[in-house]
Amino acid sequence: MRKVFLFMNVSLDGYVADSANDISGFHNDFEAFSSDESQKVDTLLFGRNTYEMMKFWSTPQGAEMQPEVAKFMNATPKVVVSHTAFDPGWDKVTVISEDVVGSITALKNQPGQNILIMGSSNLCLTLIQAGLIDEFQILVNPVAFGAGISLFAGLPTKTNLTLTDTHTFKSGVVMLTYAPN
Amino acid sequence: MRKVFLFMNVSLDGYVADSANDISGFHNDFEAFSSDESQKVDTLLFGRNTYEMMKFWSTPQGAEMQPEVAKFMNATPKVVVSHTAFDPGWDKVTVISEDVVGSITALKNQPGQNILIMGSSNLCLTLIQAGLIDEFQILVNPVAFGAGISLFAGLPTKTNLTLTDTHTFKSGVVMLTYAPN
Repeated sequence: MRKVFLFMNVSLDGYVADSANDISGFHNDFEAFSSDESQKVDTLLFGRNTYEMMKFWSTPQGAEMQPEVAKFMNATPKVVVSHTAFDPGWDKVTVISEDVVGSITALKNQPGQNILIMGSSNLCLTLIQAGLIDEFQILVNPVAFGAGISLFAGLPTKTNLTLTDTHTFKSGVVMLTYAPN
Repeated sequence: MRKVFLFMNVSLDGYVADSANDISGFHNDFEAFSSDESQKVDTLLFGRNTYEMMKFWSTPQGAEMQPEVAKFMNATPKVVVSHTAFDPGWDKVTVISEDVVGSITALKNQPGQNILIMGSSNLCLTLIQAGLIDEFQILVNPVAFGAGISLFAGLPTKTNLTLTDTHTFKSGVVMLTYAPN
């Protein structure tokens, strides 16, 4: 079965975005993004809001800012979970609007490499409760927001995890990697 | 000038306590507490709520559970910040109820070793804004709470910090150490 793993920036105080849904306080550490060659990814999984932000990489500005990231984002098949069907406006996109858990379970059972979720905190909540996330890569940024949208907000029960790895980047970002218990 | 440093447990999602103000989800990693011999402490600093919890160490149950911790807590002078004067009910306690910033500044200027704040998130907010905390030791526990009291809740501006150290404990707790920018 293919591994689903989460790659998520958080502030030191546990926010995935500030109160204005702004994520510019994060380092967006591209060193972290590309550091682990063993994480072979052939599918990206997004919630709708994160998808709309990720479309930046389809623009000329995205290609100019980080050519390697833009190339990867454009070339890799993307799955978007959205309550309503919509025109994705980008290549290689599949939209899932019904039976999210069943559809992601089926995706995991298909042959292929790893599936990477970036951001998409609402979607993560659904997948955590269904036991569909195999690894959590949480990038703790050296900044306190003071308020915002908390990681895993709405998780109904305390959930223990197992720390499997840590890695410190030059930016001061620390990647904490966990497996579900 | 004496160093003031914070020792604070948080969940992976940035909470210092759950919604019921319960901190039993933390590992309370005594290995972490006693790991750094260089942190010579001769004064403990608490907010009122944390102080009431810490009084546990003055009881026979505290001495039985962790004799070394109880001995340290009983023997070390304690400073408690409280809006109202109160009878501390424990030895070696000074209560500060007025001019918190001035009083803590004066305490830092006295001769002596380091001053350790444990928990006390409301007090921390005041001290961060006054620039009185010299080091943050944040213990990220391998648990997601889903809801609760966020670290530094109410901090009015984004605050960048500088990562100075990381340490992983057997419990899966990771201590992230920061200096103010």
